[in-house]
Amino acid sequence: MEPKIAVLPEPRGDLVSAVQAGGGVVEPVSKATRGLVLTEGLDGNTLETLLAEYPGIAWIQLPLAGVDQYEDLMQRYPDRQWTSGKGAFGQPVGEFALALILAVLRGVDAFARAQSWGSPQGTSLHGKRVVIVGAGGVGREILRLVSAFTEHITVVRAHPEPVPGAEKTVTDDGLDEALRDADVLVLAAPMTAETARLIDARRLALLRPEAFLVNIARGPMVDTGALVAALAEGRLAGAALDVTDPQPLPDGHPLWSEPRALITPHTGETPDMIRPLLAARVERNVRNLGTGFPLEGRVDVRAGY
Amino acid sequence: MEPKIAVLPEPRGDLVSAVQAGGGVVEPVSKATRGLVLTEGLDGNTLETLLAEYPGIAWIQLPLAGVDQYEDLMQRYPDRQWTSGKGAFGQPVGEFALALILAVLRGVDAFARAQSWGSPQGTSLHGKRVVIVGAGGVGREILRLVSAFTEHITVVRAHPEPVPGAEKTVTDDGLDEALRDADVLVLAAPMTAETARLIDARRLALLRPEAFLVNIARGPMVDTGALVAALAEGRLAGAALDVTDPQPLPDGHPLWSEPRALITPHTGETPDMIRPLLAARVERNVRNLGTGFPLEGRVDVRAGY
Repeated sequence: MEPKIAVLPEPRGDLVSAVQAGGGVVEPVSKATRGLVLTEGLDGNTLETLLAEYPGIAWIQLPLAGVDQYEDLMQRYPDRQWTSGKGAFGQPVGEFALALILAVLRGVDAFARAQSWGSPQGTSLHGKRVVIVGAGGVGREILRLVSAFTEHITVVRAHPEPVPGAEKTVTDDGLDEALRDADVLVLAAPMTAETARLIDARRLALLRPEAFLVNIARGPMVDTGALVAALAEGRLAGAALDVTDPQPLPDGHPLWSEPRALITPHTGETPDMIRPLLAARVERNVRNLGTGFPLEGRVDVRAGY
Repeated sequence: MEPKIAVLPEPRGDLVSAVQAGGGVVEPVSKATRGLVLTEGLDGNTLETLLAEYPGIAWIQLPLAGVDQYEDLMQRYPDRQWTSGKGAFGQPVGEFALALILAVLRGVDAFARAQSWGSPQGTSLHGKRVVIVGAGGVGREILRLVSAFTEHITVVRAHPEPVPGAEKTVTDDGLDEALRDADVLVLAAPMTAETARLIDARRLALLRPEAFLVNIARGPMVDTGALVAALAEGRLAGAALDVTDPQPLPDGHPLWSEPRALITPHTGETPDMIRPLLAARVERNVRNLGTGFPLEGRVDVRAGY
């Protein structure tokens, strides 16, 4: 009972190998196809056509952790099993979050721009109060890494169940209070209707002028205009944004010339870094599909992540 | 038996409090003075005059981890007990070393200079082979932090005793072999006759073109001219230097415009970060002086650190 899997839009070598290693057979899409493994670059319309035409496709593996671009489609085909990279890419993204936290606290971004010897400056992460929004693979990895520096870590998540290793776990209701005390606010939550504009002008104003914001999740979680104003007026010590709104950030945008801002081009996970992690997930999911075990990284279609 | 201690050149408040908390009395230098606590800024000549005039000064607490500027003086007064900040400042300097490692591997320095959205790039620290030269407080803290990303850590130190947590511990004899395999080379050793020009043109040539160099120790450990050439010719992936030779790095030096170099102005520990750590050491050492316990951070005058 080897499941027949199509790898789209092109049968990338490492994913073909992963399907085979998981006990599957890679073939072009047909009535016999049970699963689709997608790399980046398959547009939603093509995918919708395939789903409509081939009801035998029971499983779709999406290539990233974020699935917001397929949200409408998942709502229309909730009976299929949708899996993503969620939980699998914590390692590179968590690492990059720590890189950004340490860079802005210790002033590495400003030093990188300097053309002349300066004075020692910077703030240590040791003992600081860190608020992490999101308790998925990325949020938990950030928690693990930041724990080497401080025990004062609050995790903000949708469900009230405490996250092991966090000093406090709160739901959205506790976000405002957490912000008032935060030295570092890290956004690592999925993009949903609830997290859009989560950090708006009102919440930015709750942060202390010594606080730093790091966003490695999705740009629209932050009100960009309000952030630009807060930085320009010194109401925030700094911001590191791996994602922006709009994205890509257009040339000439005020954030490019804001000395308190560090902008990186959505590079929390590069294709090189996630390729082996996605391949490992595909291998396990093909095996699970063949043997009837639950798939890894299942998207909660109703919640949108 | 409260020891009489002079805090020089000025009786800085936090150090006066630390001396008192340790059971000492702060007074100007006199025949009764048993110890000197120095902040930065006391020149060697003044110190020498005091040591010659007041043989009752049994202990000198130096303000930094590195003591190279007092080396001659320590050689001439080896019978006094010299203590430094060594081992006490591992926290901020180790943190900064990790900030620099992650910055250059993940391309944060290049992104900080950009004025336009770029492409994802960078290398993860996960699973990489890291070589740390130095097993003091800083080297061990770097080992602790880097261990969250990789188990392939080689420590190079003067003594052959294995460092807990390191995959390998080697002495200088093993440095060349370690360099051939290294993805990241971190210099965290004290400045001595043995470590001057430790990384010269020959050793730079042993590193792979994918390797990164991070120096948070002392500038003269690296042959700057050879490093400039290696970076310009792409024989090294990048270098982060918190210390340089010459230092400060003069305006217009080729390293300022080298895209593979990240220069920071000896900011591994800022005065704000070390102040409480030095005060804590002073308190303990004053107490130990009064009660006859061994002092912390004793300089090995013969070894020079």
